[in-house]
Amino acid sequence: MASFDNIVINTNLATFSAHYGFDSKDKDNVHYGQLVDAAIGIKDGKIAWIGSNEQMTPYLSHYQIAQIKDAMGSWITPGLIDCHTHLVYAGNRSNEFEARLHGASYQDIAAQGGGIVATVSATRAASQEEIFAQSEKRLLALLKEGVTSIEIKSGYGLDFDTERKMLTVARQLGDKYDVHVSTSYLAAHALPPEYKDRADDYIEQVCEWLPILHQEGLVDAVDGFCENIAFSAEQIRRVFAVASSLDLPVKLHSEQLSDIGGSALVAEYQGLSSDHLEHLSETDIEKMAVSNTVAVLLPGAFYTLRDTKLPPIDALRKHQVAIAISTDCNPGTSPLTSLLLAMNMGCTLFYLTPEEVLAGATVNAAKALGLSHKGKIEIGCDADLALWDITRPADLCYQIGLNPITGIMRQGQWRKTL
Amino acid sequence: MASFDNIVINTNLATFSAHYGFDSKDKDNVHYGQLVDAAIGIKDGKIAWIGSNEQMTPYLSHYQIAQIKDAMGSWITPGLIDCHTHLVYAGNRSNEFEARLHGASYQDIAAQGGGIVATVSATRAASQEEIFAQSEKRLLALLKEGVTSIEIKSGYGLDFDTERKMLTVARQLGDKYDVHVSTSYLAAHALPPEYKDRADDYIEQVCEWLPILHQEGLVDAVDGFCENIAFSAEQIRRVFAVASSLDLPVKLHSEQLSDIGGSALVAEYQGLSSDHLEHLSETDIEKMAVSNTVAVLLPGAFYTLRDTKLPPIDALRKHQVAIAISTDCNPGTSPLTSLLLAMNMGCTLFYLTPEEVLAGATVNAAKALGLSHKGKIEIGCDADLALWDITRPADLCYQIGLNPITGIMRQGQWRKTL
Repeated sequence: MASFDNIVINTNLATFSAHYGFDSKDKDNVHYGQLVDAAIGIKDGKIAWIGSNEQMTPYLSHYQIAQIKDAMGSWITPGLIDCHTHLVYAGNRSNEFEARLHGASYQDIAAQGGGIVATVSATRAASQEEIFAQSEKRLLALLKEGVTSIEIKSGYGLDFDTERKMLTVARQLGDKYDVHVSTSYLAAHALPPEYKDRADDYIEQVCEWLPILHQEGLVDAVDGFCENIAFSAEQIRRVFAVASSLDLPVKLHSEQLSDIGGSALVAEYQGLSSDHLEHLSETDIEKMAVSNTVAVLLPGAFYTLRDTKLPPIDALRKHQVAIAISTDCNPGTSPLTSLLLAMNMGCTLFYLTPEEVLAGATVNAAKALGLSHKGKIEIGCDADLALWDITRPADLCYQIGLNPITGIMRQGQWRKTL
Repeated sequence: MASFDNIVINTNLATFSAHYGFDSKDKDNVHYGQLVDAAIGIKDGKIAWIGSNEQMTPYLSHYQIAQIKDAMGSWITPGLIDCHTHLVYAGNRSNEFEARLHGASYQDIAAQGGGIVATVSATRAASQEEIFAQSEKRLLALLKEGVTSIEIKSGYGLDFDTERKMLTVARQLGDKYDVHVSTSYLAAHALPPEYKDRADDYIEQVCEWLPILHQEGLVDAVDGFCENIAFSAEQIRRVFAVASSLDLPVKLHSEQLSDIGGSALVAEYQGLSSDHLEHLSETDIEKMAVSNTVAVLLPGAFYTLRDTKLPPIDALRKHQVAIAISTDCNPGTSPLTSLLLAMNMGCTLFYLTPEEVLAGATVNAAKALGLSHKGKIEIGCDADLALWDITRPADLCYQIGLNPITGIMRQGQWRKTL
């Protein structure tokens, strides 16, 4: 047997790998691609060997104590992946949350400069350092739950300098903390007040800024908000055309409040993911299936908005569209910094199975970010792993507010503090 | 100015004390009994002085560095109080959670020995040490959020030895960890299988066990489950009569699924609290108002059961019944170990205001446990405090899954680790 940098023994693996029987298309298999009484070998930051504990046992003497982790029968999953967040911003909106519970309407709040405009104003006004300091608290909450990869969007700047500042902070967070950060350019998030009644002019700006920010290495994907209250499919198409010319993958906030053709557009551009989807039609689900686009579901926003319209889960299953789950961490509709809780909400509010939500925060979330070497436990994949004090994988979705993490490995290294 | 053991400077206090303007009867005051730019002095484990930071400043030189906590503008609330938990048990029910999401009915699960019977079996089978080890993980999750007092019920034994074992573990948790534990005897939780069709006989046993366990110092209050699927008001009355003869306060799980007179009975016995209450009538709310009984609302169970019948919040407000909020931490209907999340659910699912849910996890929760010297920041009260990295109290209810705790004091001592 080859020599590894690190090994884990006495563990159970929820691999989410088809090599080990995981079948994302069969909601009733309850299998997780699991390997019980397993061991795993890590080399050069990658998963290099997977097998039974029994096979590994004769080789233990080849390793120093520091290289061996005895999991004592606990479970390992791929490191969690939060594939849709607006984690970088300044200020918060607890004042609006409180005002609404005292009877203020959304209109009252908007009239007082509240809503997304409040976050845009606070984010524009804040220094890069201030935004970083506020955002890292949210990131740390996610990292403590075993998140090893995260997507972070811009979209509270809506001007060149602030969009750039947000993306820069996202990159800085990835540099400072032990986490992979995928950035998404979301300047087409809302119409800034200074462009009132000139949405097409604003979209033109969004298209002009994109190549510059991409040139600076700040953009991994391009996103938009396609809704009656935001931008039309035709406006988003202009942004996607620029993305396409730069070979940047696209994704979209679609069909959260209405169906104006967002997911069909994403499918046309072979997009990575279409997100929210409460009002998605079966016709467009079929298009997503063909284009291999992931359906990213966001139960935290559904919960916070007290939504009652469920996303079309059964049709997504029927057409074998991969489903991911994410926090949607944002200051307005989902001030949520727990991916485990998003998973519980996926089960409780969306009736997804534990296997579906766990796949949704690992293998399918990786797919939604175009990260083919993450999100599963398979030889050759990145050694991003989470070790949990649980008796079965479903515990991760069943427990609410309990974080049973006992170890986090990223790129083959155990994190020193949890 | 007197000399204190500890002081906190540069802080804002959410006192929940009428002395500082807190008015639990006015849902629109948004005041929290707050004192901004405040300082506080602690002596012999009690709050000894409250005033402005300016008043304290000239005396700082009287203190050693270790005695002074500079809160740097952050907020202090009373230590949180979780007034309704079933935290002590063995096993969990994630297998049932998963089976239901794969289509199994409650009947299917019951036929396989699931439901509360599964927890009773696991708790009976487990040693005291095993129960302790499993339960302390849940307790630690709550303590990390600033919980300084907690109620813990028996009720998964349903035989003398196991009820005693559960109450003993609850006491041991209070001895080992830095937290006040109030125990409730809940043998009248469900009918044990061996008493099938003999509920009155079982109640007779429940009444016989109570004085013995009380004699052993294991019982602080007496609880029951008054529902069609559990015990009638007349059966519960027999248990309350014994409690009353022992001068033990009573409380009850009432009107969660139906209205069979539970809260009226609690009011008749001047009970501490009546809990759940989705089906509570206005007539019985009036009785609770007269008897000064707290309404304990449990949004975690409402959420997990996907309930749609809201408790009668407006009528509770109208009749000025004190409202508390709790996790209901239990393995079946609320596997929740975050009181902050219960508070968010109180706002999001029950439309309570941030001030109401914070009062519900402090001053009103203390009232629900008969702890008149806890749950508020007032001279002479226990110095149980939580220090938070927040800009306003509503942040504690608005953020989901973020724990902004930065310090916890119990009985005048700062906890060494958070």
